Amino acid sequence: MDSGTELTSLLKRYDEVRAYTERLAAPLSPEDQTVQSMPDVSPTKWHRAHVTWFFETFLLAENEAGFTPFQDQYWFLFNSYYEAVGPRYARPMRGVISRPGAYDVGRYRGNVDDRMRDLMDSLDDGTLGKLAPTIELGFHHEQQHQELLLMDIKHVLSLNPLEPAYADHRPSVGDPGPMGWLEYAGGLVEIGHNPAADGTFSFDNELPRHQQWLPAYRMADRLVTNAEWLAFMADGGYRRAELWLADGWAKVNSEGWSAPFYWRRRDDVWFEHTLTGCRPVDPDLPVCHVSQYEADAYATWAGKRLPTEAEWEHAARLEQTATTPSHLPNLADTRTWHAQASASPNGRLRQLFGDCWEWTSSAYLPYPRFHPPAGAIGEYNGKFMSSQMVLRGGCALTPPGHARASYRNFFPPGARWPLTGVRLADDGADTPPC
Amino acid sequence: MDSGTELTSLLKRYDEVRAYTERLAAPLSPEDQTVQSMPDVSPTKWHRAHVTWFFETFLLAENEAGFTPFQDQYWFLFNSYYEAVGPRYARPMRGVISRPGAYDVGRYRGNVDDRMRDLMDSLDDGTLGKLAPTIELGFHHEQQHQELLLMDIKHVLSLNPLEPAYADHRPSVGDPGPMGWLEYAGGLVEIGHNPAADGTFSFDNELPRHQQWLPAYRMADRLVTNAEWLAFMADGGYRRAELWLADGWAKVNSEGWSAPFYWRRRDDVWFEHTLTGCRPVDPDLPVCHVSQYEADAYATWAGKRLPTEAEWEHAARLEQTATTPSHLPNLADTRTWHAQASASPNGRLRQLFGDCWEWTSSAYLPYPRFHPPAGAIGEYNGKFMSSQMVLRGGCALTPPGHARASYRNFFPPGARWPLTGVRLADDGADTPPC
Amino acid sequence: MDSGTELTSLLKRYDEVRAYTERLAAPLSPEDQTVQSMPDVSPTKWHRAHVTWFFETFLLAENEAGFTPFQDQYWFLFNSYYEAVGPRYARPMRGVISRPGAYDVGRYRGNVDDRMRDLMDSLDDGTLGKLAPTIELGFHHEQQHQELLLMDIKHVLSLNPLEPAYADHRPSVGDPGPMGWLEYAGGLVEIGHNPAADGTFSFDNELPRHQQWLPAYRMADRLVTNAEWLAFMADGGYRRAELWLADGWAKVNSEGWSAPFYWRRRDDVWFEHTLTGCRPVDPDLPVCHVSQYEADAYATWAGKRLPTEAEWEHAARLEQTATTPSHLPNLADTRTWHAQASASPNGRLRQLFGDCWEWTSSAYLPYPRFHPPAGAIGEYNGKFMSSQMVLRGGCALTPPGHARASYRNFFPPGARWPLTGVRLADDGADTPPC
Amino acid sequence: MDSGTELTSLLKRYDEVRAYTERLAAPLSPEDQTVQSMPDVSPTKWHRAHVTWFFETFLLAENEAGFTPFQDQYWFLFNSYYEAVGPRYARPMRGVISRPGAYDVGRYRGNVDDRMRDLMDSLDDGTLGKLAPTIELGFHHEQQHQELLLMDIKHVLSLNPLEPAYADHRPSVGDPGPMGWLEYAGGLVEIGHNPAADGTFSFDNELPRHQQWLPAYRMADRLVTNAEWLAFMADGGYRRAELWLADGWAKVNSEGWSAPFYWRRRDDVWFEHTLTGCRPVDPDLPVCHVSQYEADAYATWAGKRLPTEAEWEHAARLEQTATTPSHLPNLADTRTWHAQASASPNGRLRQLFGDCWEWTSSAYLPYPRFHPPAGAIGEYNGKFMSSQMVLRGGCALTPPGHARASYRNFFPPGARWPLTGVRLADDGADTPPC
Repeated sequence: MDSGTELTSLLKRYDEVRAYTERLAAPLSPEDQTVQSMPDVSPTKWHRAHVTWFFETFLLAENEAGFTPFQDQYWFLFNSYYEAVGPRYARPMRGVISRPGAYDVGRYRGNVDDRMRDLMDSLDDGTLGKLAPTIELGFHHEQQHQELLLMDIKHVLSLNPLEPAYADHRPSVGDPGPMGWLEYAGGLVEIGHNPAADGTFSFDNELPRHQQWLPAYRMADRLVTNAEWLAFMADGGYRRAELWLADGWAKVNSEGWSAPFYWRRRDDVWFEHTLTGCRPVDPDLPVCHVSQYEADAYATWAGKRLPTEAEWEHAARLEQTATTPSHLPNLADTRTWHAQASASPNGRLRQLFGDCWEWTSSAYLPYPRFHPPAGAIGEYNGKFMSSQMVLRGGCALTPPGHARASYRNFFPPGARWPLTGVRLADDGADTPPC
Repeated sequence: MDSGTELTSLLKRYDEVRAYTERLAAPLSPEDQTVQSMPDVSPTKWHRAHVTWFFETFLLAENEAGFTPFQDQYWFLFNSYYEAVGPRYARPMRGVISRPGAYDVGRYRGNVDDRMRDLMDSLDDGTLGKLAPTIELGFHHEQQHQELLLMDIKHVLSLNPLEPAYADHRPSVGDPGPMGWLEYAGGLVEIGHNPAADGTFSFDNELPRHQQWLPAYRMADRLVTNAEWLAFMADGGYRRAELWLADGWAKVNSEGWSAPFYWRRRDDVWFEHTLTGCRPVDPDLPVCHVSQYEADAYATWAGKRLPTEAEWEHAARLEQTATTPSHLPNLADTRTWHAQASASPNGRLRQLFGDCWEWTSSAYLPYPRFHPPAGAIGEYNGKFMSSQMVLRGGCALTPPGHARASYRNFFPPGARWPLTGVRLADDGADTPPC
Repeated sequence: MDSGTELTSLLKRYDEVRAYTERLAAPLSPEDQTVQSMPDVSPTKWHRAHVTWFFETFLLAENEAGFTPFQDQYWFLFNSYYEAVGPRYARPMRGVISRPGAYDVGRYRGNVDDRMRDLMDSLDDGTLGKLAPTIELGFHHEQQHQELLLMDIKHVLSLNPLEPAYADHRPSVGDPGPMGWLEYAGGLVEIGHNPAADGTFSFDNELPRHQQWLPAYRMADRLVTNAEWLAFMADGGYRRAELWLADGWAKVNSEGWSAPFYWRRRDDVWFEHTLTGCRPVDPDLPVCHVSQYEADAYATWAGKRLPTEAEWEHAARLEQTATTPSHLPNLADTRTWHAQASASPNGRLRQLFGDCWEWTSSAYLPYPRFHPPAGAIGEYNGKFMSSQMVLRGGCALTPPGHARASYRNFFPPGARWPLTGVRLADDGADTPPC
Repeated sequence: MDSGTELTSLLKRYDEVRAYTERLAAPLSPEDQTVQSMPDVSPTKWHRAHVTWFFETFLLAENEAGFTPFQDQYWFLFNSYYEAVGPRYARPMRGVISRPGAYDVGRYRGNVDDRMRDLMDSLDDGTLGKLAPTIELGFHHEQQHQELLLMDIKHVLSLNPLEPAYADHRPSVGDPGPMGWLEYAGGLVEIGHNPAADGTFSFDNELPRHQQWLPAYRMADRLVTNAEWLAFMADGGYRRAELWLADGWAKVNSEGWSAPFYWRRRDDVWFEHTLTGCRPVDPDLPVCHVSQYEADAYATWAGKRLPTEAEWEHAARLEQTATTPSHLPNLADTRTWHAQASASPNGRLRQLFGDCWEWTSSAYLPYPRFHPPAGAIGEYNGKFMSSQMVLRGGCALTPPGHARASYRNFFPPGARWPLTGVRLADDGADTPPC
């Protein structure tokens, strides 16, 4: 791509990504945008401001002539966790900041947008080439927060007895059919970001691409459904210690888990809080909002296990090399805002890159020879590689263009507010020969 | 007063009280009105809705023909603590409720106002007479929340590094002069609400009027100033265990107290967060936002003590019987939004009914022969008579018409976010003869 | 008393008090003496050492020629709360100190005993007279800890599924009969320690003796029984919010209170953990180990109230002036180790100075003109006068000689591990004339 | 081995293992044996009883004719975490159980020993063969608790200001010299228990043996020393966020970490609490009692990383295949009770199986195709495979016979009370060819 084209492309991408955030926030009132319903959740207007701060801090501050921040205190308020950038406002207290309000954040966004466009326009080719990776990182960073913004407001609205909905409901159709199984021989495989298959961008945690030895394994062709989860519950799934990891069992008891996170029982009927309202649990839909502990307990109950992240990536790549796509993933552009029933079985892996982030049995750790980049940007991923588990795929709240086979999402094993689901795996028939 | 006049008067009062709440909330954005900065604080829009719920629950529900609530869930959301009225939303979670928003709460208020006016208009004299005490209670209840609304938003804004102000600053003038002392002989005195002196209304906790035996005592003629408090601090006040109650000393250490609640040190200068911005500590102003533990430690350091509530009331009544008022109290109608320097000494008690609520050494307990009324209204005061201390007077955020000599305010001894101050007392020369 | 007699008497008292502590600890193994079952509880061997530290610190250190402490670190380990004496070991961590062991503490006690006897022997009359009050305070201090030692080990043993008993059981007999009521006219009364009636010793918090105005009142002639408490429970006592103070109701819910502290239900029978084993609840015995919140809720349910401490003291004094005692109090010398059924009604106040400490409705606050003594000894009582409630009388674990009409015991209103009970009071027919 | 020999061998091993526990407990008083200093720590007498309960529950209960438990409640008290065996006493409350005392636990041990010997004697060959693996598991289980008993009492004694020592000090000598590095080519390697090299016994978590692909790597020839750790501290190691995992940095701040767990600074000298007393930090000794977070931060600071558990095992095996041992490991039989200075560098891996458990960068997860055994024994390891990190090697408190190359120890990354240390690793020059 020549540099004029690259500039045009960057500017176009910039406008698209930035506009999409505002489109997602548009149905939310100033009050909605202010609330932090628990420490893990951030207010909508904080997300809108923080992604803007990212561009201001990592692009404008170092490259804009005569830079002064839009507002001094914003650097303190909208830094998420970058120690190298200085002190920051305590995360659990984001919900006590009423000002800047939603409108003021809009003005901040507009100001940074103007300056970012001016900056990009003004750069010579060499500098643009040097800054392009950070600009690109800003896009993907904002996309991550687009997804979080939706997961977070879902939690905010879930606590409101008025049961407000974020968007209108769209019916889901399709019979998932029985769970099918696909076989993989394993062997010495390559894991990690592959530009040819995954697109040029990746986060640092998807690198370096490296070899791993995989024993033969099997993968379920679709996600576990609500009907299957109800069977687990009916069989005492939440009351049988032998199915659970010790930490998970402790949570079951200390937090009183007896169903997925957003399920509520009313007059003997299970309902589920969604972004499109509180709706009866649909047996055909994937189970959503379960922790890794629950996913693991379910797999134990079913006589199966969760996939490792390497198994998932390996299988997903094979699926992608097929000449015809098996399905169109249910990402945020479908505007369903929730996992959907899978299409009928077709001998292929279904629901791979949408619907629900899929828990794996892999701890979130650095790939061999991973070294975070120097400086504040190095804090992006590496420092979180402790006590978290990897999820793969994407979900109904993931912006299009933000899902790929090498993507490593991660949450603590007890997290339930992300839009997560369960795909089972199993050992294959034989260990592959070396 | 004949019933026509009473109706006119009630309607006028109703409109005044209700309008004053909205006037206090007017400078606050929807975002400001949504935040709960700690469990003790309630969002502005919650206050506005809760006082409305009070009229809807205790007046309309039982007296309006064909009553249906404005919105079913509001009964759940805006009940503060009335167990008899049913379940209620958890207090520390009031800040996660984004809807109804500030505007919706305005509609709720308008609807209840219309219905309340219709109800009052439609009542026959007998019924009006029977309901008038509850309507009157609604006024005083709303006034309490007007004061709380201001104390609460003060805390919300205090946590914002942008240091927003609620209102413009008005300079305070006046040299407080040295602390003077007034002598009281004591003896067998009458304590409790006295309609002739206090006006017809009182809360139930100001009753019954009863006798108490008071030893001779002395009262300081004004509140302790910031200058005096700085001397206490300079003398190690916050570091000397021997000055403190054990519970207070534990707080000093566990919460790191080293100055009044809203004081901040910047470059060796003390500043104070107020509703009119963050301002240098003015040595002539009363010290504000100290807990009862701090007030008690200060008194010990000064070789004095806090007054009992009976001493305070007895002295305040004597002051009130003087033919000319010693001063105009600094209540909310002065729009200073903060304690002011007292006028010069004049041999009288100064700053009695405004500026700061004054801590006493009295636990908040029922007066002899107190019995709370039956039903939900009985929960208004009685059930809080445990582990709290009485404050007397009023403060710069108290609405006019809401201060009287018999008024018993109360907070836990460690509370610092209310607008509190310190008046010293001392033992008199002799115990009075019987 | 001449000084030789005083010396003899002091030495005799010293030996008695010190020996009684060891007698109480004798049935307890080294392991029993080590455990701290919750922060409020201290290990037996800590009690034994701390009362010894008191004599070492407040008598030997200042008066023994060439004083050196028995063991330097003991000053740190066995200081309870005297800030003026220096730093001290954190209270909730007393149970992690295995050494000095029970035997080593015995050696510490023996050493201090020898030195204390030598010191007393060696003093001239004037010095002995000057030190006698502190020595006497040491006796009463040790007696307080004798009672605490028993309450604390009761809690320790209660958590052990082996249900060990501290002592053999002695059956209680006697029909309490219906609750009778005694009338008191009130008026201007004297409250506080009265050497003629109470004996020469008092703690500082019983002083100064002062006047109070009491409205007419009535007192129940005995404590509330288990049978009566069961009726309260059967009538939903622990489930009806309207009976409770707000703080109490919060405890009912957060701690799941549904019966007195040591009651356990097994196969539909209520049992009670006591120092003589786990025994079926005896309907005739006083209810024990209820908090002030529970006592207050019971009184509300019964249409009565708790007495004030002044009412209790006034009534108890009148009872004591009767020529014949109405009963012998059930203190620790009876070796019942538990409250007993009261004798039959006899128109007098029963169970006054034994069985159970009796909750009052009075907050623990200084008497008018109370000033704690200077120095470390001044920390004995005054600094705890916050957020606690007064109890009067004594209990089955109180050493003889340690109960008197002016005695002010105090605990937080939610405390349940002390041996507490309930005596009801009520308003009298008329307010007395002045 | 014929069955007579096997029986003789089992009986001999039984006596040895059981006697060793009592030998370790012998220097501890009844009081020492009672204390639980934090939830992770168990009292000595609990360890002694729990390992006995293991034999009673898993051997006697199912195989002894006419079995009755020694004491019913012991099954409740001394079950550690086996859900399948029934309810159990809450772990953090083990320290409130004074009875059974240390002596009673000795009687329990004696009784079970007699019955276990009788049982083993009485079994026919077939049954003995079937039970031998569980008996063997009991030995290794008891050995684990021997190590824990020492780590736990070390913590108990550390909180005592008297600074008691568990044993006499033995001086350590030897100059560790500069850190040397050994190169490993990696490739497709076998990981997991190998009976030929490791002995016949393993825990289930060391299985199944399986293939892994290892890139080339390097390992330090010795543990990090106190001198090196002091350099890290002097360079701001505990104050530089960029060196730390986010969870680790949170701990540094919330718990105030500024040096290894048992270090204390007195008059500008660092001391270290050990089982042989509080001693000046010896620069030549390995740093002990650091968390995995600290180990990771140190490695980052040093420009290195921690080894994976596969790297560690692979390198350790190669070391073991050398014809002459490089060193004798410092396990519990040396009675040093602490890590020792390593011998001089010799081009080999030093300090491999003793001194300190070595943190790896590997999360504790199941090996491929791992399935826990059915029943209660299946709870031994599998259910803890969440949020913990693997340690390899052994330490100065590990009983001889309890260290092997395949052994997987595990603790949460923030644990500091185990006897842990740090061995560095690094990437090798080239990735090996497939």
